Amino acid sequence: MMKLHNFFRSGTSHRLRIALNLKGIGYDYVAVDLRTEEHLGAAFKAINPQQLVPALVDGDLTMIQTPAIIEWLEERHPTPPLLPSDPDDRARVRALAAIVGCDIHPINNRRILEYLRKQFGQDEIAVQAWCATWIEAGFAALETLLAADTRRGRFCFGDTPGLADVYLIPQVESARRFKVDLSPYPNIVAIDSACAELDAFRRAEPAHQPDAPA
Amino acid sequence: MMKLHNFFRSGTSHRLRIALNLKGIGYDYVAVDLRTEEHLGAAFKAINPQQLVPALVDGDLTMIQTPAIIEWLEERHPTPPLLPSDPDDRARVRALAAIVGCDIHPINNRRILEYLRKQFGQDEIAVQAWCATWIEAGFAALETLLAADTRRGRFCFGDTPGLADVYLIPQVESARRFKVDLSPYPNIVAIDSACAELDAFRRAEPAHQPDAPA
Repeated sequence: MMKLHNFFRSGTSHRLRIALNLKGIGYDYVAVDLRTEEHLGAAFKAINPQQLVPALVDGDLTMIQTPAIIEWLEERHPTPPLLPSDPDDRARVRALAAIVGCDIHPINNRRILEYLRKQFGQDEIAVQAWCATWIEAGFAALETLLAADTRRGRFCFGDTPGLADVYLIPQVESARRFKVDLSPYPNIVAIDSACAELDAFRRAEPAHQPDAPA
Repeated sequence: MMKLHNFFRSGTSHRLRIALNLKGIGYDYVAVDLRTEEHLGAAFKAINPQQLVPALVDGDLTMIQTPAIIEWLEERHPTPPLLPSDPDDRARVRALAAIVGCDIHPINNRRILEYLRKQFGQDEIAVQAWCATWIEAGFAALETLLAADTRRGRFCFGDTPGLADVYLIPQVESARRFKVDLSPYPNIVAIDSACAELDAFRRAEPAHQPDAPA
């Protein structure tokens, strides 16, 4: 059984739980408590020198960085696929995913917000405005791309959930937490609703994890 | 001939130029001047709604997001490969790339630094310290991973340049620009020197591009 070292509220952890669930892969849930900075301790640093969750352990293989882990899942466990088969379509789906994975999530990560608070002395209103800025910039681009794409269906690409949805849904969860108005993004909201009907997405939600507050 | 919309000093543009050169793919260089905010204008927004460089155009296909574009290059133009063939090894190399691609570069991007200056009123010393913080955090993790890996050779993985080098070298260039002390990272420095001997890397350097100052 694979071991998933993760934290209920972490967006990248949430992303990887969705991917594992869509692939039908069971895993042992190993909680790493970011609230007590467990990820900065020696035990977790031995698993991931980058001191970020999640990490996925499969036997002797320890993997970090969800973009790398999810491509590995796609290669080792190809059914059901998270990517379309045509390379041009794959580039499209991976680009949608990367807008979230590179240009929204890492900028709003815990370590960044801690820097804004401690080094720049910013209050929670400023931190929330920071997060909203990058979510809104990314979502505006995603909405434009989704609206213009005839290959969009119930999900980001067609009528089957895939890689772009795996990235998008945790970011929508985060957007709601930071009180971002989602009304300018009707396609994103519709895709979020379609995903919420699926067990693979529901079981991955932060609130349903063993380390979430009761 | 493919068209590369890019800017000489942009790290993601530099990354994509290296990948194209390693693949032996020629391209038309289309300069997008970030200094005059050309990337925020309507003409470039029609190419990339995210208003970030680079974009690669191949006939009717317009691609954005270098992680997606480089995977497309690997699928459409597989020789020479930038990734090893074994999925476990591929996960390793993609993780090294993602440390730069997700957790260093986007946080030090132009739009972020402009926010620090304009919204938070930070001076250039504070901006430089910000950039150095994320470069040092990422390079420390990379150095630990590289030092522990028996598959490391002259390059990040083996004795042939690949995906991780494509991401790493522009980030080393950026680290030097932000005056980061590279002495704690001897493996990174050695890999940078090995890459600097190769024509594919030299031709991709910011200073050698047509839009670079004379």
